Amino acid sequence: MKTVGLIGLGAMGNGIAQTLRRAGYALSVFDVRPGAAEAFAKDGGHACASLAELGARCEVVASVVVNAAQTESVLFGADGAGGAGGLVGAMKPGSVFVMCSTVDPNVSIGFESRLAEHGIHYVDAPISGGAAKAASGQMTMMSSARPEAYAAAGDVLDAMAGKVYRLGDKAGAGSKVKIINQLLAGVHIAAAAEAMALGLREGVAADALYEVITHSAGNSWMFENRMAHVLAGDYTPLSAVDIFVKDLGLVLDTARASKFPLPLASTAHQMFMQASTAGYAKEDDSAVIKIFPGIDLPKGEV
Amino acid sequence: MKTVGLIGLGAMGNGIAQTLRRAGYALSVFDVRPGAAEAFAKDGGHACASLAELGARCEVVASVVVNAAQTESVLFGADGAGGAGGLVGAMKPGSVFVMCSTVDPNVSIGFESRLAEHGIHYVDAPISGGAAKAASGQMTMMSSARPEAYAAAGDVLDAMAGKVYRLGDKAGAGSKVKIINQLLAGVHIAAAAEAMALGLREGVAADALYEVITHSAGNSWMFENRMAHVLAGDYTPLSAVDIFVKDLGLVLDTARASKFPLPLASTAHQMFMQASTAGYAKEDDSAVIKIFPGIDLPKGEV
Repeated sequence: MKTVGLIGLGAMGNGIAQTLRRAGYALSVFDVRPGAAEAFAKDGGHACASLAELGARCEVVASVVVNAAQTESVLFGADGAGGAGGLVGAMKPGSVFVMCSTVDPNVSIGFESRLAEHGIHYVDAPISGGAAKAASGQMTMMSSARPEAYAAAGDVLDAMAGKVYRLGDKAGAGSKVKIINQLLAGVHIAAAAEAMALGLREGVAADALYEVITHSAGNSWMFENRMAHVLAGDYTPLSAVDIFVKDLGLVLDTARASKFPLPLASTAHQMFMQASTAGYAKEDDSAVIKIFPGIDLPKGEV
Repeated sequence: MKTVGLIGLGAMGNGIAQTLRRAGYALSVFDVRPGAAEAFAKDGGHACASLAELGARCEVVASVVVNAAQTESVLFGADGAGGAGGLVGAMKPGSVFVMCSTVDPNVSIGFESRLAEHGIHYVDAPISGGAAKAASGQMTMMSSARPEAYAAAGDVLDAMAGKVYRLGDKAGAGSKVKIINQLLAGVHIAAAAEAMALGLREGVAADALYEVITHSAGNSWMFENRMAHVLAGDYTPLSAVDIFVKDLGLVLDTARASKFPLPLASTAHQMFMQASTAGYAKEDDSAVIKIFPGIDLPKGEV
């Protein structure tokens, strides 16, 4: 089995690392937070002290960091996040970099061509499904890559996710589909909040509204999932308001590059920015409902 | 079993009438289009020549007309749509009027109080699910009514629909929940179109995008249903663009009455109006995607 590295032991990355370790891969891990890699490796795997160490050890490296800027730093940073020369200088020609973050598709296309100059294969591989599915191996991956990259890393991709969509023969399609999923997810959360807020304004019983909508043509995956948080009055962040400030911003950046209008995504982005600046940035994204005036939100069971 | 009347043999009304006839009710029907009632009654039931005749014959009268204006005309028109004195003058005290149209909730509340002056019970009973489910008895009804109205007509409601939500003890809640469902349905159709349009602009394969989204958190009932029409290049109207010009207009009217902001519903309404005036008023509501410039829509299998 291939030697595999994983960078970024956050909620998603930690879950994926558990899944790869369970699948039997020789796994090396790295995280900028002191002690995170060592804590993971107590139950198996190797904690790397630097990105350079990880890059030198591994045939396939998955990056599960927050955004494009962190990915840029991991790959090309002058001294790397680990202070030891960065990743690209250490990875061998023929090895594979698997980019799992949600980024502007045009940025992902750029990573592929820049890594090709170093003989390193690239998989555009954003992921979806949340931390629990990452840990159980049931997350979804929206990928695209050159055939030689799939040939070199396909088995690792399949081990990481329950479903690996292969959407094209070069970088871009994976990130584009992920961005479009985020467009819908963001608009649907904001629409769910708007609908529930109107119901509260009009004096409709929130639980009855939830029951009817989730069994009607107005339902969405996000309405069903996020309005349960609103009914419970629980805004503990599973995914925060600021994630959609970022992700809908990426959606709009992508469309702006081809001068394409997105009336609903831009409206939803404004709603999340309003929620963020009003003080709900770190709350669950369903807290976007708090921008609506003149309503009393459910407090949940007490 | 009670004597039941049904007004309006359009796609939904005809299906409901079939369902009631199959359930064994003595059914009287009326439609403004000459011959429509007679055609229905060939297989059973009684075709009424006027609203007054229908009102005099029936303990429970269901109205399945297009909008509030038609409902107003049916109930209180000087000579009724049948030219014979209208419905209210003919219905007996203690009988029940079941209002199945999608209307402004405040209008529905008004109908209830005006009928009460005539001793006629009222059920606020908008319906959902489409013609096929109406005919098979599987549609959904979002109802609210005074207890005496439910007592007098509850068995008929249960015969009309597969699921009858009882949402309150007076008119209003039924229409409010229906309006909120339409808010979500309209926003989700427009968002689905926006997302698919961005995918086409970015060169993503439409069928692959559909496959991924329908298995991801970005999915909605409407994305799954309506984008299948776009992939097939088939804009035969199952529900037309102008239905959402109307229904999102009702949503905005309802919210405006309490000065409540609806950023997404108002944006989606503008999109449907743009589609309508651009020439797609009578096409399937998924034709809202045609407002997006610079894309080639799928032509479907040829």
